[in-house]
Amino acid sequence: MKIAAGIDIGGTSTKFGLVDFQGRIIDRGEISTAKYPAPEELVAKVCDAIRELLKRNNFKNEMLGGFGIGSPNGNYFTGRVEFAPNMNWKGVVPLADLFQKQFDVKAIVTNDANAAAIGEMLFGAAKGMNDFLFITLGTGLGSGIVANGEMIYGHDGFAGEIGHVIMDVNGRVCGCGRKGCLETYCSATGILKTYIELKLAGMRNESDAQLFSKETIDGKYIFQRAEEGEAEALEAFNKTGKILGLALANCVAFTSPQAIFLFGGLAQAGELIFEPTRKNFEANLLNIYKGKISILPSGLNESDAAILGAASLVFKYNS
Amino acid sequence: MKIAAGIDIGGTSTKFGLVDFQGRIIDRGEISTAKYPAPEELVAKVCDAIRELLKRNNFKNEMLGGFGIGSPNGNYFTGRVEFAPNMNWKGVVPLADLFQKQFDVKAIVTNDANAAAIGEMLFGAAKGMNDFLFITLGTGLGSGIVANGEMIYGHDGFAGEIGHVIMDVNGRVCGCGRKGCLETYCSATGILKTYIELKLAGMRNESDAQLFSKETIDGKYIFQRAEEGEAEALEAFNKTGKILGLALANCVAFTSPQAIFLFGGLAQAGELIFEPTRKNFEANLLNIYKGKISILPSGLNESDAAILGAASLVFKYNS
Repeated sequence: MKIAAGIDIGGTSTKFGLVDFQGRIIDRGEISTAKYPAPEELVAKVCDAIRELLKRNNFKNEMLGGFGIGSPNGNYFTGRVEFAPNMNWKGVVPLADLFQKQFDVKAIVTNDANAAAIGEMLFGAAKGMNDFLFITLGTGLGSGIVANGEMIYGHDGFAGEIGHVIMDVNGRVCGCGRKGCLETYCSATGILKTYIELKLAGMRNESDAQLFSKETIDGKYIFQRAEEGEAEALEAFNKTGKILGLALANCVAFTSPQAIFLFGGLAQAGELIFEPTRKNFEANLLNIYKGKISILPSGLNESDAAILGAASLVFKYNS
Repeated sequence: MKIAAGIDIGGTSTKFGLVDFQGRIIDRGEISTAKYPAPEELVAKVCDAIRELLKRNNFKNEMLGGFGIGSPNGNYFTGRVEFAPNMNWKGVVPLADLFQKQFDVKAIVTNDANAAAIGEMLFGAAKGMNDFLFITLGTGLGSGIVANGEMIYGHDGFAGEIGHVIMDVNGRVCGCGRKGCLETYCSATGILKTYIELKLAGMRNESDAQLFSKETIDGKYIFQRAEEGEAEALEAFNKTGKILGLALANCVAFTSPQAIFLFGGLAQAGELIFEPTRKNFEANLLNIYKGKISILPSGLNESDAAILGAASLVFKYNS
């Protein structure tokens, strides 16, 4: 078996690596997505970097078995990225073609979350599972649905957009242009909004708000405040977990999975997010599902998963 | 190919028939489910009736290739009916076993909606479709999910309970013991509640309410009032379609189907329910799905679908 190039394109950065069939990352790199707003330019830079990786590991270019690419709104059937909400790209980008112009090997594209879900199935904690959900809590909320042992792509390749299930028609404005999507609450961005709302609600005067506005608030900040026992930070995790628990309970009514894996920055907060999620999940499950479904952390190393997941596309489909 | 017995167990009545492999119902019967509260008794009565059907059509018992049984909360993997919310049965009923004690042929059980979905796939309007949703708007709201050309049963056989997706945590009490499930709004029972709420809200004095309470209000009544242009009846259909449209738009984010089929008494109301459903469906779809997914009436004859669907289990799985 040849090696695969796994490429994970995110709104902020693009990660890539060379992966062998046992799921070992041989070498890796990362570039800023934002720095190369044109997809052609980004692909060229990534391919240059992969040529470098091949060279410095003494692999001939022919050793490369294929590209696996995870990208927001990546379409498995067409190889394109279509109207990605958290990317600067406009319209439809023929991503697989762009890679195939650079290297004479097959390029397989899918949603970044689908790629990670396949990674979880081949190399992670979902080994041997036929029915599971994989949820990434990153900038947005991505999801991959595996049922009957197969990734669910849907009629058009766009299945598994659980982050865009509408939880509240009058809710927060979403990047997709609608309101109240799950990811506006349950994602790194979502918990940040919730936390700031809670902080502002508790402030009594202008100077409080001015002091607060000088802080750089991100996921890590909220996590640290919660670890210190700050009420608003704890409440932000509780609120986020409560909405996520309800949403996941609703998800179960679709595909009745064996387990649900949580992945991504927000999931790294551990019990701060898992505990309220599990509690409200179980409380909202239909009785036939109660006590049957585990909400688990991903079995993939956070820094490896995106590359491994993307590369696993090559091992799963490029036979 | 032998013939199959298709049996559809509903909260009110149990329908059954003999079906050939081309989806023709050779003969059929129906008994009251409510009259036989013990499942053993119901199964014995159904089997007696099927022996009669075989006899009067000059089939030997050996011609029977199997039983396909659709039942609320029927489990394909275990052959049991577990905690069916709209039935009088308590706990777990080993339905396949009960049938197999009466006839020495395989009995295959699933959710009544899953059975009808397989019927739609083999004999109806979903022929050749790999990804579709089948929604029954009956006493409750049942659903069957087909993805990658296969029925989604989930880890435990209980996938496809879309009727129990929670639309409003503070909403109507559901038969399942929770609140705000989709089926409390979008079902024959749901529209009845909505209509009565609307009528009562418009009443100004006790005598109005007394007159109203003498009417026998059911789905047919509301349909007739709507056909006559009564504001509350039209509004009841609008409200029901609005909630259904939103719920179906959320469904699409899971399996991205090619089409959604609506079946059952409420779907028989035609454009009265389809028009507001389609309108709010399209309005709430994520942009990547817009204009791609058809909401269609089932291609199965209303009076045949339940039996055909159940029998199709035998043709699909009993090889």
